[in-house]
Order: sequence, then C-alpha cells, then structure tokens
Amino acid sequence: MRAKTLKPLDAAWLYVDTADTPMQVGCLAIFSLPPDAPDSFLRELFAHLRSVERFAPPFNLKLAAPRLKAVMPAWVEAPRIDLDYHLRHSALPAPGGERELGVLISRLHSHPMDFNRPLWEVHVIEGLENDRFALYMKMHHSLVDGVGGMRMLQRMLSPDPAEENLPPPWAVGSGARRERTSGPRGFDAQLRKLAETARQQAQIAPAVARALGRVVRESVRRTDYQEALPFDGPRSVLNAKVSAQRRFATQHYDLERVRKIAAAAEVTVNDIFLGICATALRRYLLEINALPDRSLTAGVPVSVRPADDQNAGNAISFIIANLNTTVADPLERLRAIHHSTAMAKEHLQALPKAGIDSYTMIFMAPFILQLLAGLGGRLRPMFNVTISNVPGPKNSLYFNGARMEQIYPVSLLSHGQALNITSVSYDGQFNIGFTGCRDALPSMQRLAVYTGEALDELEQVLGLVPAKAGGRKKTGTRKAA
Amino acid sequence: MRAKTLKPLDAAWLYVDTADTPMQVGCLAIFSLPPDAPDSFLRELFAHLRSVERFAPPFNLKLAAPRLKAVMPAWVEAPRIDLDYHLRHSALPAPGGERELGVLISRLHSHPMDFNRPLWEVHVIEGLENDRFALYMKMHHSLVDGVGGMRMLQRMLSPDPAEENLPPPWAVGSGARRERTSGPRGFDAQLRKLAETARQQAQIAPAVARALGRVVRESVRRTDYQEALPFDGPRSVLNAKVSAQRRFATQHYDLERVRKIAAAAEVTVNDIFLGICATALRRYLLEINALPDRSLTAGVPVSVRPADDQNAGNAISFIIANLNTTVADPLERLRAIHHSTAMAKEHLQALPKAGIDSYTMIFMAPFILQLLAGLGGRLRPMFNVTISNVPGPKNSLYFNGARMEQIYPVSLLSHGQALNITSVSYDGQFNIGFTGCRDALPSMQRLAVYTGEALDELEQVLGLVPAKAGGRKKTGTRKAA
Repeated sequence: MRAKTLKPLDAAWLYVDTADTPMQVGCLAIFSLPPDAPDSFLRELFAHLRSVERFAPPFNLKLAAPRLKAVMPAWVEAPRIDLDYHLRHSALPAPGGERELGVLISRLHSHPMDFNRPLWEVHVIEGLENDRFALYMKMHHSLVDGVGGMRMLQRMLSPDPAEENLPPPWAVGSGARRERTSGPRGFDAQLRKLAETARQQAQIAPAVARALGRVVRESVRRTDYQEALPFDGPRSVLNAKVSAQRRFATQHYDLERVRKIAAAAEVTVNDIFLGICATALRRYLLEINALPDRSLTAGVPVSVRPADDQNAGNAISFIIANLNTTVADPLERLRAIHHSTAMAKEHLQALPKAGIDSYTMIFMAPFILQLLAGLGGRLRPMFNVTISNVPGPKNSLYFNGARMEQIYPVSLLSHGQALNITSVSYDGQFNIGFTGCRDALPSMQRLAVYTGEALDELEQVLGLVPAKAGGRKKTGTRKAA
Repeated sequence: MRAKTLKPLDAAWLYVDTADTPMQVGCLAIFSLPPDAPDSFLRELFAHLRSVERFAPPFNLKLAAPRLKAVMPAWVEAPRIDLDYHLRHSALPAPGGERELGVLISRLHSHPMDFNRPLWEVHVIEGLENDRFALYMKMHHSLVDGVGGMRMLQRMLSPDPAEENLPPPWAVGSGARRERTSGPRGFDAQLRKLAETARQQAQIAPAVARALGRVVRESVRRTDYQEALPFDGPRSVLNAKVSAQRRFATQHYDLERVRKIAAAAEVTVNDIFLGICATALRRYLLEINALPDRSLTAGVPVSVRPADDQNAGNAISFIIANLNTTVADPLERLRAIHHSTAMAKEHLQALPKAGIDSYTMIFMAPFILQLLAGLGGRLRPMFNVTISNVPGPKNSLYFNGARMEQIYPVSLLSHGQALNITSVSYDGQFNIGFTGCRDALPSMQRLAVYTGEALDELEQVLGLVPAKAGGRKKTGTRKAA
C-alpha cells in the first residue's frame, strides 16, 4: 500500500480546509418514485446500495496522515471501509417540502468530514412530499470538483427506466483513468512554490498577493469599463470572513423559457443567468442597505476540460464579469453584463491552449495565495461572488426506475467568498443552487426568490408576456434554509 | 459584557476536547403522543419551542476566544443567538424503530459542536413508531455534566399531563444559582497547576502520571484481592485510543424486577447493574477473542452533591469495582462484585467530607493528567470501563401532555475509555445507555442485548423463574447503532 502524493492543485484544497471553510462539495438529486412503486421501494433501494461493498478510486482512498493533511497530503488505500458510516438513510420531518429539504441539506453540508476515513458520504433522504425522495452526495474537493462529483452520481443513473441495480458511485469511481489534469507541469511546480512561500512567510504574503494583483491588472490592459479585472470589485458583505455553517436554497426554471428570453434580448443563456443573479443581488443588498456604490463583479468558471475527457479532475479557467449592480434598469443591466462577458470570453479564446493555462495561473494564483495565507475576507476580494453555469445531462435519467426530477450542485465557500451560485442544466431545466454562509447571509432564501422575480421582470420588459399590474408574479420552485 | 473565566474543572473539558474526543454529553428522552393528539401536535410543539427566544445561563454563554479555548477558557454572553441553529427538527426513516433512532442519535452525538456559538443543541425527532417522538439535547461538558443536563431537560417537563407550554430548557437554564461546586479551592488551584505542567512538559508527563499512580496505589494499602486499585486493571480493547465516531445503544428494564433479583441475591441494585454489565462484557470479549486473563475493573462515579443542591455543576467522587470477568459462574461473579463495591464504599464513607475531596483529587488527578497530556490509550488504563448509575425522576413526567416513556444519558468518551455504560432510573424503570467508540466496538449493540440475557440468567439461577430449556430468553428493548 504505497502512499500517493496529491497534485498541488488537489492538495491546495487540503491546505485551505479549516473548521470554518470545509472544502467539501455536494450534489443534490431529487427523484420521483415510479408510479407503481411498492411501499418497500426505498427500503429495497437502500438495501441494494448497502449490499455493494466494492470501492473504486477515489472512494477507496483516505489520507495517509490525517493530522498532517496540510503539510503531507498523500492518499493511501483504506484497508477497511465502514460502509454504514458513508451511506446514510435520513428522513424529512412533515410536511417534507422543499423548505425541510433545504434545512437538512444545509445541516449535512455544514458537518465537517472525518479525515480518518475516505472523504465521501451518500445520503438517501425519504419523506419528501409528492412521492419523491432525494439523494445527497458529499465529497472533499481534493478528490473531485463539483462537476466531477455530479458526473460520478450520474454514473449510477440510466436513461432507461427499466434498468435496475446499477452499481452505486463508490463501486464505479471516477472511471478508467485516475490521472487528473490539473494544468501543465510548470503550473503545478510554480503553485507549489507559491504555496510553500505563503505558508512559511505569512507576514509577507499580503504584499505578495497585492503585487501579483498589480501584475494581473497591468498585464491585462483595460480598454473598456466593462472589462472587469481581478481585485477591482468593491468590498461587500459577500466578501466577509465566513463561519462554519451554511445555508442552501434552490430554484429551477424551464430552460426553453430562459432561452426565449435570451433570444429576445440577443444575449446568451449564461448572460440571463448572470442578469437575474445581478438583479436579485441588487435588490437583496439594497434591502439590507449594503449595496456598494461600485458594481459587483462575478467570478465565472469556464471549463477547459476537452469534451472527450471523462476525467473528473479540476481543469478550469475563469472570466470575471461586471454585474452592473449600480444600473437600475434590468434590461440595460443585462446588456451591459453581456458586453462585459463577451469581451472577457473574446480575450480568453484568442489565447492558444498553452496560453489559457498561463492566463489561468496568473489569474488564479493570487486568489489561491490569499486562501493559503488565510487572508481571504481581509484583502480586497478578487471578485465579489462566484456564479457558475455547468452543463448537465440533456435527457431524463432514472435511478432504479425512479425519474430524476432535478439535480443541484451544493458548493463550497472560502474566506472572502460567502456566496456561490451554481446552475446545472438537466433535461430541459435550468436548476440553480445557492450556497451561502449562514451568518453573512441571514435571509439567503430571498435571493433565490428574487431571481425568479427577476426572470418574470425580464419577460415583461421584453414584451414576452403582458406586463402585470400590481406587483410581480412568483415563479420557480424555491427551497431554502 | 465581561468575560468570565471557567473554573479549572470545567475548563479541563475544553483542554481535552479534540476532534476524536468531543467532550459533549447528551440526553435522549422518548415520549408518547397524548391519546387524543391532533396530527399537528408535534408541529405546534416545535413552533412553541421556536417562539421562546429568551436564553438563561448557561444557554446564553459562548466562548470568549473559540480558537484559544484550551489556553484562555472564558465565557461571554452571546450578543445574538440564532435559535434556528440550536433547535432542530429531524425525522426517522421508516420503520422508525429503536434501531433507526439509535443510528440517528449515534450520528448527532458524533457531530462536533460549533465553538463560535453557545455549546448546546436541542433536537425534536419525529417518525418514531407507535405514536412516539424523541427529544435529544446535547451540551458541552464544560457547561454541564450529564446529570445536570438531564435535570435541565426535566425542568421543561411536568408531573401534570394537563400542563402546557412550559418554557424550554434554554429559557430556564441551570436555575437560580450559577456558581458551580467543583471541589474545594485547593483542589482547583492544584489541578490548574497540574494541567499547566502537563501541557507545557508533555514529555515528562508519563513519568508524572506513573508516579501519581504509584502514590495512589501505595496510599491505599490493599488488604483484599477484591479491592480494585487505579491503574491495576488489565489492558483491553476497551482502552484503545478512540476515534471521532460514536455508537449508541439502549436497554430498559422494570426496576421492580431488578430489585427482586437484588433482594434474592442479597446485593444492591447497583451490584446487579455491574453484574449484568460484567456478564455482557465477558461474553462479548470472549466472542471477539479479547477477554483479558485478569478481571476488568469499572470506574463507578459516586455523586457527592448534597441532596439539597439543585446546582448542575460537577461534583463527583469515584470508586473502582472489580468486575470479576475471569469468573465463569454468574452468581459467583455477582457476589464477588458485591464484595468489591461494598469494600470501596466503606473506604470512601469512612472519610470526612473534606477527606472525600482529597481522596477524589488523588484518585482523579492522574486520570485527568493522562487526558491532558494526550496519553489516554497509551498508558495502562486507570480502570477499564465507566459504569454509572444515576437516580432519575421517580414519577411520570409530561411534555405538553405527552408522557415521557424513557430517558437515557448519552455519554462522552476519552482516549483510553472507549465505552461508557450509564443507567438512569425513571418511574419504575431502569434505563441503560451504552456509548461506545464506533471503531473500537464494532458490534456494540450485542453488549446491550447481552445485559438483557444476563438479567434473565440471574433470575433463573436465583430460582425466581423456572429455568428454561434450550437457550436464553430475550428481554428488554434494544436500540442500537
């Protein structure tokens, strides 16, 4: 049993894992019971899952030295895995609505993981109203990123409702190839050096981070106000030091409806997503009297994983979008956001493949440095909020005949980043998960509600539906904690 | 808002609190719904609890410096308490039996607490079969001991089923007096000194602990083999270093039945309790081929809290009982245990009040030192297992008309002490909670089952029931995880 040292980008998630910022990512899937399901359906499903005691990588890996996770990050195969610990059966209290589910997911996602065991949990949740149940899978980010986690969960699903007893994620693992693409070798080496410097010389790190920020700002010559630069967003309540507890809320929309709005406004679906988030943030922050007088910026991950790569590793680049939260008019705001993202993408796509990696490093290094040095929440934020749009499965998927209705990402936070909004598309739906710091965002569920109202508003101002007299129409389905 | 430094004995629980040994104590109470309860009973009860946002000490206290809890233990009043964090509504999956409840309590008791908040949680648990529900309260041991916690829970109960809307524990707190009796001043000062020495000079601590153990052994001249001395028990699987996860199992018996057996054997009820635990431990350890060839010893807390003291603080002494696990005959074993406990109690009761304190200090100091120095599980154990018998309420108590059926303590473990068995009497019942280390005791629920079978066996050998041909009768109600 040879210990395998983690790649620096994966190990970074162990460096920055603290009681207040557990680096765990989750995935919530909601299923309908098959129409003819017997009362014992869920019990039998659970018993089937429980019976599979084969563990594929990374589900069979544990830290070689849990207490030294930050300085000696290496995996070993766990000699014995206590499946009853990792696979859990839970239930919602009555009435078992989206609210109760949101509360439970908030709690489960807040509990730290046991670093002496393989870093994953799968929860089967019963008691969801309207003959539904849920599955929540949690993993450490050093093992898998959010997108990879969702892919692992999807491997236990089938497009065929008649297919039964598909092996659970832990029996399949991350697929054939274990090697993970975490950037070119030069990036890894440089990052490791940066990380070591930051840890050993925490007192000089602020200066290093500031200097790097300057380098980035200077290397990217700004030609337009809409070109949002790192460390250029305002300070805001979204960029406080975070505490250990999370809130989780969701919304889902018909993707076709979002597409129609995008077409009418001549912007992308992602711009609509950024636009309704910007509207919701502007309203929420105005209500708590905390809207900065400069526009918020959003870090928007862009996957650079080739389409043919089934690997679950981390391989992302970033653009930074100007959310134009100082603009009052929703359509004007949307168009300005579109201008901002179009410019950023143009910038990124003009670079050759190797150039993208360098760009990512230059962009991300100061951010990771901030985290490593524990400075998040104290320096100016690199951007104000992470807003991520992930493509998901296009067609209906089934888990032993039970149709998956929605799938949501449950994200991680770090100091200085108290809110993460990630959407995933699935079978004609646009599903949004809001993960926030419990203390920094006291009524976070309102953000979820406001995105729905923002979508209604866009439909109205674009003339897609008749404007309503007397207030906004509620839309979408909300669950919140 | 002035910070209040903790007394050394209370602060000790913060010193020894680690990820693997969270120093949290719990209390599980099971209730029957009133016969005419509407469907909304539990929802309304929860809403009533949720509506009470008054917080009495110690429920309003949080650590002044959570990250320095071990070196600067002081309480401050929390300026704002997020009740939705502390009061939680949960549910059991079907069939909602004792097994599912045991699994949930095991999990809840394993989750670490958030040291940035007041150190308590109250969980209302629905979905327990046969029209029952449960309440689980968890607190940090630095705020309250297990007995004090149960008393706090009892304050929200009434002997009158018609009484409603009694204030929840957090609104009542520990009662009129906040001062806690944690031994005479000299003990506190001496313990603080010991603690500081142990922390600063961990390398010499083993010698100190061994020396203190010798002092104790020499100061208590052994005159009888049955006089169990500290650090004299064998090494066993019960005395390993513990990991972070817990198991919890329960049993309950008719107290009158236990009394009859005790009378027939001419021993005390507590001796019967020790006897059936000894029998169960002997059988369990024989099965896993781990029974030491010398008898296990039990640390048995003895409360020295005066009967008129309603205070919830820690004030306990200890006796050590020889469990005679090398003796094969159950009645012979019981009588030897009786001999051992009678002698230890005689020894303790011959001391004046001040002498009891000194005795407790001499007895406990090396044990606490071991914990403080992180040596638990590496040195010879002071005793093999903690077995505690706590007097509880004598008559039926009600929670808004719902009768409390059972009440169980959920205990803490420390390195070197992987099992705690604590019973509490209530309204003619003898309720036993088994708290064990998940990894050290893989099938701990068997211990609970075996105590029931040991009670049947005693009844048979004492001629109280006709001896059964062909195996033991099952007794008691078990729930396990």
